Amino acid sequence: MTAVEYIGTFAGAMSGVRLACYKRFDWFGAYVIGFVTALGGGTLRDIMLGVTPFWMTAPSYLFTTFLAVVAVWLFGRRFISGKITWFIFDTIAISVFMVIGLEKSIRIGVDRGIDSFADWWCAIIMGVITAVFGGVMRDICINEVPLIFRKELYAMACAAGGLLWYVLYWCGVEDPFVRYIVSVVAIFVIRALAIKYHLGVPVLTGRGKTIHLPHKKEAHHD
Amino acid sequence: MTAVEYIGTFAGAMSGVRLACYKRFDWFGAYVIGFVTALGGGTLRDIMLGVTPFWMTAPSYLFTTFLAVVAVWLFGRRFISGKITWFIFDTIAISVFMVIGLEKSIRIGVDRGIDSFADWWCAIIMGVITAVFGGVMRDICINEVPLIFRKELYAMACAAGGLLWYVLYWCGVEDPFVRYIVSVVAIFVIRALAIKYHLGVPVLTGRGKTIHLPHKKEAHHD
Amino acid sequence: MTAVEYIGTFAGAMSGVRLACYKRFDWFGAYVIGFVTALGGGTLRDIMLGVTPFWMTAPSYLFTTFLAVVAVWLFGRRFISGKITWFIFDTIAISVFMVIGLEKSIRIGVDRGIDSFADWWCAIIMGVITAVFGGVMRDICINEVPLIFRKELYAMACAAGGLLWYVLYWCGVEDPFVRYIVSVVAIFVIRALAIKYHLGVPVLTGRGKTIHLPHKKEAHHD
Repeated sequence: MTAVEYIGTFAGAMSGVRLACYKRFDWFGAYVIGFVTALGGGTLRDIMLGVTPFWMTAPSYLFTTFLAVVAVWLFGRRFISGKITWFIFDTIAISVFMVIGLEKSIRIGVDRGIDSFADWWCAIIMGVITAVFGGVMRDICINEVPLIFRKELYAMACAAGGLLWYVLYWCGVEDPFVRYIVSVVAIFVIRALAIKYHLGVPVLTGRGKTIHLPHKKEAHHD
Repeated sequence: MTAVEYIGTFAGAMSGVRLACYKRFDWFGAYVIGFVTALGGGTLRDIMLGVTPFWMTAPSYLFTTFLAVVAVWLFGRRFISGKITWFIFDTIAISVFMVIGLEKSIRIGVDRGIDSFADWWCAIIMGVITAVFGGVMRDICINEVPLIFRKELYAMACAAGGLLWYVLYWCGVEDPFVRYIVSVVAIFVIRALAIKYHLGVPVLTGRGKTIHLPHKKEAHHD
Repeated sequence: MTAVEYIGTFAGAMSGVRLACYKRFDWFGAYVIGFVTALGGGTLRDIMLGVTPFWMTAPSYLFTTFLAVVAVWLFGRRFISGKITWFIFDTIAISVFMVIGLEKSIRIGVDRGIDSFADWWCAIIMGVITAVFGGVMRDICINEVPLIFRKELYAMACAAGGLLWYVLYWCGVEDPFVRYIVSVVAIFVIRALAIKYHLGVPVLTGRGKTIHLPHKKEAHHD
């Protein structure tokens, strides 16, 4: 299980470093972007849950991120051109982070007697934050509109996997390992299907979308 | 009072969803932007005060934000073209959030014995953060320069309302409801006057502003 | 020692206000940017360490930031055209913040019995965050790619100074003042040499860098 977590961290960091590399950041910048991508979501989750960010108690996450920088430097082409490899890495990262975040929210809720942390809506949000907010922070740092707001069934796949975790729990599946595996596999399959059949969350248009453009320009930036 | 808080949340979320809609975000992205706009300021305030973010203990805020997405989808044109409706909604949101933030800072300061949280400068800052930082986070997420740094008497109206709250308090107005209402109305009036007479905080020029342009280019991004 | 901290705060705020001025922000926006630049890194550090952000217990930091806004307004040209003055101010800020952050991490680790906070890797990261993340937040707020990811030996100079602090500590230098001064001077000298000889962290290229461009475009923003 821990091994899978490090694979997820490595994959997340790779995704950040790859973009930093494209933006011509230096080694330090690439490291920070990799770090933010892989560990930023979990850091935000831990701050919201009121606990010490997980990577501050063990240097292994920092080291894993460094490995990702070295890997992009050494094997850039190989890793980057393999779309399927890439998809597998990336999806392992988000599905593992999703379930880790969800379970941590429940655990801390139970430990501290904050019931709502163990409720499905809160735990799923904590899982989704763990899984996808690293990517949001990455995109903010490299000065792009976060990809996740515009493309692919990314966060929704995570939320669906988290809901499945709870359905299994409500149905009396006691073994946490079974819930873990089923959720991770479900997220993986949903993402694979979404990419294969070009599924995505529809763009929110709003009735009369063409009308509000001039007003918006006035109300917002000139 | 709670009803007003939900109206504020709804209005804040609408303001975010509207922009997300303009940027062609999908439903999920629009929801996240609405959420960040409405609840982001209060979340930052709670993290700074060292307490659990308020929306993590009750799902009603999440639901209110979802209603705002549905409302933009259904009634987009109606809501968006009505400038006065819009101003009313928006100003209710910031004035209510301002006083909520200020009072929460005081309450937590008293509860935990951290005196400075109840001091006017700290409580007013916590109120302003609650009122306006959701909008700053929204603008960062949609990759725009935050509007608030360049236009309108927005945050200053909030700060003035907060100061009035303290003046009433220092003058011996015991009833918290009176202080609440007077502050909210004051913020509303200041904003209305500011918009009517095109008042705003002056741009900071700095003596010799034309001189530092080339230096800035060198010092900053090439 | 405290005087140096306020000089650092003032210098950091100036660096933010200067850019806000260039971006034609109003007085309020300039103040917020100055505040974020000077105090943002320390705020993030304190949130991660689980303590109240330092400026929330004393209004003096808010006042120092305000002085920086007034200074840019009054003496804009003088401050801004003097490159060497500028370098001295800026470097004092980061070197002092680096050691303050490092020492605070250790102190809180000892106080709360969280051993890892006093470990070299964690304390140095907390120092670097204190020193440089204000600047990252500033650049995010003004909608630019953070400078630090692309230029100059900035964060690495801080990290080197932090490592030197620990080397002195491991070598048995008992006097905290000596460690403080040596680290600050080292950061100063490293930055000065880096600027003089145009040293910087190399850009991370990744083997086969030209290959991944089309893939990146596909995977990321269309």
